[in-house]
Amino acid sequence: MSLNNIAIIGLGLLGGSLGLAIKERLPDANTTGFDRDLDVRKRAGELGLVGTVADTASDAVSDADLVILCVPVGAMSAAASELAAALKPNAIVSDVGSSKASVSKALTEALPGATVIPAHPVAGTERSGPDAGFATLFEGRWCILTPPEGADEAAASSLRAFWEALGSTVEIMDAAHHDLVLAVTSHIPHLIAYTIVGTASDLEDVTQGEVIKYSAGGFRDFTRIAASDPTMWRDVFLSNREAVLEVLGRFSEDLTALQRAIRSGDGDTLFDLFTRTRDIRRSIIDMGQDDAAPDFGRKHD
Amino acid sequence: MSLNNIAIIGLGLLGGSLGLAIKERLPDANTTGFDRDLDVRKRAGELGLVGTVADTASDAVSDADLVILCVPVGAMSAAASELAAALKPNAIVSDVGSSKASVSKALTEALPGATVIPAHPVAGTERSGPDAGFATLFEGRWCILTPPEGADEAAASSLRAFWEALGSTVEIMDAAHHDLVLAVTSHIPHLIAYTIVGTASDLEDVTQGEVIKYSAGGFRDFTRIAASDPTMWRDVFLSNREAVLEVLGRFSEDLTALQRAIRSGDGDTLFDLFTRTRDIRRSIIDMGQDDAAPDFGRKHD
Repeated sequence: MSLNNIAIIGLGLLGGSLGLAIKERLPDANTTGFDRDLDVRKRAGELGLVGTVADTASDAVSDADLVILCVPVGAMSAAASELAAALKPNAIVSDVGSSKASVSKALTEALPGATVIPAHPVAGTERSGPDAGFATLFEGRWCILTPPEGADEAAASSLRAFWEALGSTVEIMDAAHHDLVLAVTSHIPHLIAYTIVGTASDLEDVTQGEVIKYSAGGFRDFTRIAASDPTMWRDVFLSNREAVLEVLGRFSEDLTALQRAIRSGDGDTLFDLFTRTRDIRRSIIDMGQDDAAPDFGRKHD
Repeated sequence: MSLNNIAIIGLGLLGGSLGLAIKERLPDANTTGFDRDLDVRKRAGELGLVGTVADTASDAVSDADLVILCVPVGAMSAAASELAAALKPNAIVSDVGSSKASVSKALTEALPGATVIPAHPVAGTERSGPDAGFATLFEGRWCILTPPEGADEAAASSLRAFWEALGSTVEIMDAAHHDLVLAVTSHIPHLIAYTIVGTASDLEDVTQGEVIKYSAGGFRDFTRIAASDPTMWRDVFLSNREAVLEVLGRFSEDLTALQRAIRSGDGDTLFDLFTRTRDIRRSIIDMGQDDAAPDFGRKHD
């Protein structure tokens, strides 16, 4: 199944990067794009994120072999309904959403009979909007496909080949398992980062100026992900509620245990954990999923 | 008061960087160094971290106008006692510890009559040991001095000038306030990062391999600071217990509120917080305390 005509719905960081990556890696493919925000459509045209910016979602998808929804997960259902009538019979509909069980349900319900293969490229930055996109976002990153039971295997293979062409490594996973794994590796880290940044800015005895000045002690690392798109993340937490609450419960238990160790002066418990966590960092660097440069290669002058 | 002879006790990331920074920025100063670990002393000599590596703490400090203790905060008292008898009468004794009230107490008790001016350069990386040091670590960073009540003002001024010569901006602060500010901007972020990395590696339904593979979703940011030196951080939590527990209590309350918002589907609460936290990120970048490059400038290819 060749995917010559690709429609991208939503032209922010992910949609824009996807358009630019296709232009660079699959130069023969035609891309059309749509965003419900007129300013974003204009900007996408100026930046050349896609070959053609369409004025409606229907126009964007009418010739598409592959439609990729790059909207917040809470907007998937509405976006899918909007284009349902204009889809070609054999078109593959996919997405880039960070939670998969709810998106899979939303898309299959909004598009009865369509070939739906949800996907999640595990890549992003703290920036958002059409200007944030860049062609290499997906290179060397994982992309997880969660085909629903009974999904067309040829369609899943085509989608795999598409993501591999963009430089990603593809994994197939059950949607529920995806949601648990990503709750751990992405959703809870974001929630914690948002929380601590909020806590720090609400203290009475420490000014916000002090928090900002002395942020190099560790806090600033958290602010990067706490600068991510608010709409996207609100939707992620609401749509992956069960897994998020489960992992959050475990995190809270572990934090309480450390709190008790600090209160009772139990240095061994602290030392043992702090030693164990170093190994995980090393493995992430060995797997090429982070930069080994000290301090993320931040300049010190 | 001129500080021509400077002794550095402890030759890890901080002590080593200090030696290299002095060599570059204050080339006329003489530096002597000591570390209780023979291998570290040898390595410090090979790397030229200080002008002279001494075999005992007493030898290192006997000519020093300024002694800087660069050991974990739990080892300050013992390190100070070891060199007490060899100090010159007017020598300034300082340190680089991350908590200040307990260190101030430990140093003034171990060195009765000495001129003690505790200090905390808010700078570091996740690396540790003598090979981790580099000359520019302190450039553009804040250094907080916490002179005890009645401390020699000329000594505090000299120490201020010293840190400014290394490229830092100096602030004077009360030790207790320092400990609260740093609990927020450094200690709690480290504790949370250590906790979530521990939680992630202990789950039954998500393998460690999966955690590592999909870490680019946010988790990897936490692993950087969770790779910091275990001994140093154990000591920080034990020595700054009160402030750490206070801020941790606030964080837990805030996290519980978000947990409730997720459980009840209250998207507005989530969205409001996530919007507010973006501004803090922007201010940190404007103040030059972090890198504005998307994704910390990590390569995407």
